[in-house]
Amino acid sequence: MSLHPAVAAVRLGVRRHLADVEPGSTVVVACSGGADSLALLAATVFEGEKAGWQVVGATVDHGLQPGSAEHAAHVVAQMATLGAGETLSARVQVDGGGLGPEAAARRARYAVLEQVAEHVGAAVILLGHTRDDQAETVLLGLTRGSGGRSIAGMRRAFDRYRRPLLDVSRDDTVTACQVQGIEFWEDPHNHDRGFTRVRVRRTVLPLLEQELGPGVATTLARTADQLRDDMDFLDDLAEADWVELRGADGSLPVDPLVGRPGPVRRRVLRLAALAAGAPSAELFHDHVLAMDSLLTDWHGQKWIDLPGHLRCARRAGRLLLLRHPEAESR
Amino acid sequence: MSLHPAVAAVRLGVRRHLADVEPGSTVVVACSGGADSLALLAATVFEGEKAGWQVVGATVDHGLQPGSAEHAAHVVAQMATLGAGETLSARVQVDGGGLGPEAAARRARYAVLEQVAEHVGAAVILLGHTRDDQAETVLLGLTRGSGGRSIAGMRRAFDRYRRPLLDVSRDDTVTACQVQGIEFWEDPHNHDRGFTRVRVRRTVLPLLEQELGPGVATTLARTADQLRDDMDFLDDLAEADWVELRGADGSLPVDPLVGRPGPVRRRVLRLAALAAGAPSAELFHDHVLAMDSLLTDWHGQKWIDLPGHLRCARRAGRLLLLRHPEAESR
Repeated sequence: MSLHPAVAAVRLGVRRHLADVEPGSTVVVACSGGADSLALLAATVFEGEKAGWQVVGATVDHGLQPGSAEHAAHVVAQMATLGAGETLSARVQVDGGGLGPEAAARRARYAVLEQVAEHVGAAVILLGHTRDDQAETVLLGLTRGSGGRSIAGMRRAFDRYRRPLLDVSRDDTVTACQVQGIEFWEDPHNHDRGFTRVRVRRTVLPLLEQELGPGVATTLARTADQLRDDMDFLDDLAEADWVELRGADGSLPVDPLVGRPGPVRRRVLRLAALAAGAPSAELFHDHVLAMDSLLTDWHGQKWIDLPGHLRCARRAGRLLLLRHPEAESR
Repeated sequence: MSLHPAVAAVRLGVRRHLADVEPGSTVVVACSGGADSLALLAATVFEGEKAGWQVVGATVDHGLQPGSAEHAAHVVAQMATLGAGETLSARVQVDGGGLGPEAAARRARYAVLEQVAEHVGAAVILLGHTRDDQAETVLLGLTRGSGGRSIAGMRRAFDRYRRPLLDVSRDDTVTACQVQGIEFWEDPHNHDRGFTRVRVRRTVLPLLEQELGPGVATTLARTADQLRDDMDFLDDLAEADWVELRGADGSLPVDPLVGRPGPVRRRVLRLAALAAGAPSAELFHDHVLAMDSLLTDWHGQKWIDLPGHLRCARRAGRLLLLRHPEAESR
């Protein structure tokens, strides 16, 4: 019996993106019980046997839905059946702390996965995001309007996380489960149109495919790949400049900064504002452009206001980031 | 009677983006007879009286629709009524020459506008593209998947062209015409769903506004602005490297190139392939990645194939761009 192409595609993703993981390493697979993460776990077990990895399946119980503990227990059993050498279920407390519910759940999930990885001494933690997740992320980013980074999508690797399935379609993960007899769970949230991501998945992407031609998800993911490289490079240039130029008080010298190319200069200004305490969710490109006008359109302005009770002013050849006096007196 | 905000928005666009145009200059406004270009002409006449410009209205008859000559004559009369100091109608011959019909019409239009500008000694030629046109361009680019440049939208200025209305909505140009009693023409092509751009305008953007929230067009245009800056900078870096590194035969030295950061290096490779004759419409990012593998994943590959009957091979420390031998013998 020949290998089904969908199973082959998932395994190829794992093989290609974990080629550097040494024999004897421990690999954690984060598993929701959905088709993507179960297909990923099955493929990782298969590839891990050849590569000599210890595969640990980990599921996180967010405790947000009735029956979530039973669901977690079911996923643990499934992971064992699929051949994970060790399985773990971790219960987290989702505490918003000013974040939206999705962001809070994500933060809690990543924190516990870190603990699991520490506990089992894992080299890498695998996440099951697919090409379709990537396309949705890019489209969601388009609506933020904060430049290339907002549409650069998810990284293939960061810290010890890897996303081996970013080139694999969601359909392929579903098919891979079906042909391997793996029962998967459908998150009821995936049908809740209150989530923007669900509307993107169920309405926006299908319409784009219909009106602009098939393959839009692939195209969006490919654009994101190139953009990530470009944005990482520009961010690195800016970071190096910022580290070189910043004063002990966080101020920046005008002259060398004016000579920097705009895309680098404006990124340096953004880094300086963030370091001074401007909240990143409130610091928009217009703020950065206003800071930039103190460099490129200087005519004695007093200061410009920034979020986080900050002011940016130009004095004696330096850009200063100052606490707003009213904030000081509070 | 106070100034209508829509009229004010169009005039502001002209004032802001033509601030550097000297008194006594001649300004050509390209006018289709649509709301955007008529509103642009009216605003340019108004601002031009204060700024001391000679305003020339120019309309291009593509000769593609029955009655196009009468339409051009009508637009000429309108432009005179709106106060253009001089009006011109130019008939062009649209010759595909391998281009699609839209691209061929655009090329012919720009060529005749250049002639008009030469003829009247114009400093600038104004185009009436709005923020909505920009958003449509970005969305169309998303489906090309060729990285940041494909979604960076239209430039505000290039050669002697300017687009003063890229921050103005199409609705505002329509309203500006209505409140100023300007009758405008609706291009029947704007309802022809055979054009992808028409489907983007009539179906995709309204759905995005509905599902992702209002202001999507603004957001897309803002993302494009930032991306253009970033892409221009990266392209400039690559151009400088390419000019420095290329040999007389178009080859490139491996060692210095390997040391360049990926986003710059891959752009240099693209420039080298284009200069060797690879058609830009056929040269995909995958081709560039294949060339890059000769640098970063070198294990004695023979060559890689490129469009335009080209091969890229690594020999004696250089990347060579060679005509395919079969192409030579034809």
